[in-house]
Amino acid sequence: MLNVVATLVDEAKFNIKEDGISLRAVDPAHVAMIDLSLKSSAFDSYKATESEFGIDITKMIDVLKLAKPNDIISITHDEEKNKLILKIANITRSMALVDTTGMVEPKVPNLSLPAKVVISTVELIQGIRASEAVSDHITLSTTPDGFELESEGDTDAVNLKLTKDLLTELKCKENVKSLFSLDYFSNMIKSAANEKTVTMNLGTDFPVKIEFNIANDNGEVHYLLAPRIESE
Amino acid sequence: MLNVVATLVDEAKFNIKEDGISLRAVDPAHVAMIDLSLKSSAFDSYKATESEFGIDITKMIDVLKLAKPNDIISITHDEEKNKLILKIANITRSMALVDTTGMVEPKVPNLSLPAKVVISTVELIQGIRASEAVSDHITLSTTPDGFELESEGDTDAVNLKLTKDLLTELKCKENVKSLFSLDYFSNMIKSAANEKTVTMNLGTDFPVKIEFNIANDNGEVHYLLAPRIESE
Amino acid sequence: MLNVVATLVDEAKFNIKEDGISLRAVDPAHVAMIDLSLKSSAFDSYKATESEFGIDITKMIDVLKLAKPNDIISITHDEEKNKLILKIANITRSMALVDTTGMVEPKVPNLSLPAKVVISTVELIQGIRASEAVSDHITLSTTPDGFELESEGDTDAVNLKLTKDLLTELKCKENVKSLFSLDYFSNMIKSAANEKTVTMNLGTDFPVKIEFNIANDNGEVHYLLAPRIESE
Repeated sequence: MLNVVATLVDEAKFNIKEDGISLRAVDPAHVAMIDLSLKSSAFDSYKATESEFGIDITKMIDVLKLAKPNDIISITHDEEKNKLILKIANITRSMALVDTTGMVEPKVPNLSLPAKVVISTVELIQGIRASEAVSDHITLSTTPDGFELESEGDTDAVNLKLTKDLLTELKCKENVKSLFSLDYFSNMIKSAANEKTVTMNLGTDFPVKIEFNIANDNGEVHYLLAPRIESE
Repeated sequence: MLNVVATLVDEAKFNIKEDGISLRAVDPAHVAMIDLSLKSSAFDSYKATESEFGIDITKMIDVLKLAKPNDIISITHDEEKNKLILKIANITRSMALVDTTGMVEPKVPNLSLPAKVVISTVELIQGIRASEAVSDHITLSTTPDGFELESEGDTDAVNLKLTKDLLTELKCKENVKSLFSLDYFSNMIKSAANEKTVTMNLGTDFPVKIEFNIANDNGEVHYLLAPRIESE
Repeated sequence: MLNVVATLVDEAKFNIKEDGISLRAVDPAHVAMIDLSLKSSAFDSYKATESEFGIDITKMIDVLKLAKPNDIISITHDEEKNKLILKIANITRSMALVDTTGMVEPKVPNLSLPAKVVISTVELIQGIRASEAVSDHITLSTTPDGFELESEGDTDAVNLKLTKDLLTELKCKENVKSLFSLDYFSNMIKSAANEKTVTMNLGTDFPVKIEFNIANDNGEVHYLLAPRIESE
């Protein structure tokens, strides 16, 4: 969950509820948004009342790396000192919370994206890696017959074409096509590297909505990435 | 043995005797001391008369890395040219000795350290790694009930607490507590990473004495690390 | 094949014929030459008419790294656009060819090298690694009894001595000895790291000819490295 959030922001406000944790954030350049939720069932044991925590994501990831494979990690909130208390094996680590006053929660825009494609993460990452040598933009397009990722450099080009039978799912009535920053798209998809597939919703010159599950289907990630408009 | 010595000095004087090798050195800042011995039984075959060799530790470690897992390494002294001759597989490597005239052998101070703790190296290293993100100092303390490693930063803190039952051995009648440079302590303990446990002797505002065996118990390492006095 | 070529040049002209591919190039400093051939039998399927391609070796190596272990790679020439089209899994990668007008094909000199030694690549690489810490030159010599690699620094020295019984083959009637740049020699031999043995032909103050097979014996590499004349 933290690795996914880290693709967009260094610090974030986590909303704690009785049945789980959620988070909504935009990156500093306002190009991408993340909307993430993790059910209490993702934890061995979970007990919480409604609250908000500002967390330094990078620091938290480093602290959790201390855990050995079978270590159980406990996280509690010391209300008096307003710190997180992490217990990993015999170590107690107290961590200051980050001020959340400046962190505005973005509204998820109401988008109608006509095409939907469910695609193998491995295929997509191979296409991204090929594109990274060629350009810093990619075009994503779907037709009723398949999905295409294209990247055009000055002399070289990359094309990943997956016909309908090579996709897990394809819903597309009319052709759609949008251009995106490869850097953002790459970070988002690579954060899903452990998941078998990702779902993308696409339109023409519209944002792409990327969705996948985390934590053994106990959590959901929704990314939204703004398109770049091709200059002629 | 060389990796242990390399935590404190780049060059060192090795004392060769008929029954083994020993070495005593302080680091350039005079904060830490090492007193190391290796019995002749650590070698497949050993034959020596009393002598002293100045050795460039870093270079020697690099040369020994040439050996493949089953290669036998032979080290002899070419008295005429005053060089070490290392044979590894079919390679003969001659290596100049380092001048030992400037290398004074430190005296091991006679310390009476009231507390003794034998502790799992893995636990200790996990505590060190946690502390490194928080401060460059650590406090080591023992009570009759257990051992504690603490590190305090401006906003964050780390505490590794091992009660008596989690320690291999604990001898402590009264509470003791000293502050140390984390950097030195970390290098010393990490050089023992392959050993199951290390022994520490502690006092209040006194040096810590760290002891562990090397080379399948054919060698012994004694480190001494000066305390830092907490400024109020 | 590309990793071998990359030891000497960044770009090269590949000669395509009906029965295979060949290449001849010298490094920018004109110290070393490569003469390489790869039979059509090295490919799952091969169809070509006579032609010449200028290829950016580094870029091509990067593109081929996209392939997963069982991916089949197809390379075709788009004559109209004068580009190479690489297909790896579902990815199509088009790659501009490099202008070959400046690339002169070197003539392979007619050398009579009296000594021949076939030697284990692993042994040779161990000797090279040992030498790299000592000097940037090595002497290669053979006698009717064996092969020797020597490297002399100011205070340290390395000697790898392989008697006839430790060599796969040795043909040598009179003693020969030449000095070479270690850097070039190292890169050449390391590019043969996957092959069991390499063949070297040697003379006195003459180039060394290094030969080994690649691609399951479907290809041959011939390197020629100029000697350095020892200054007295």
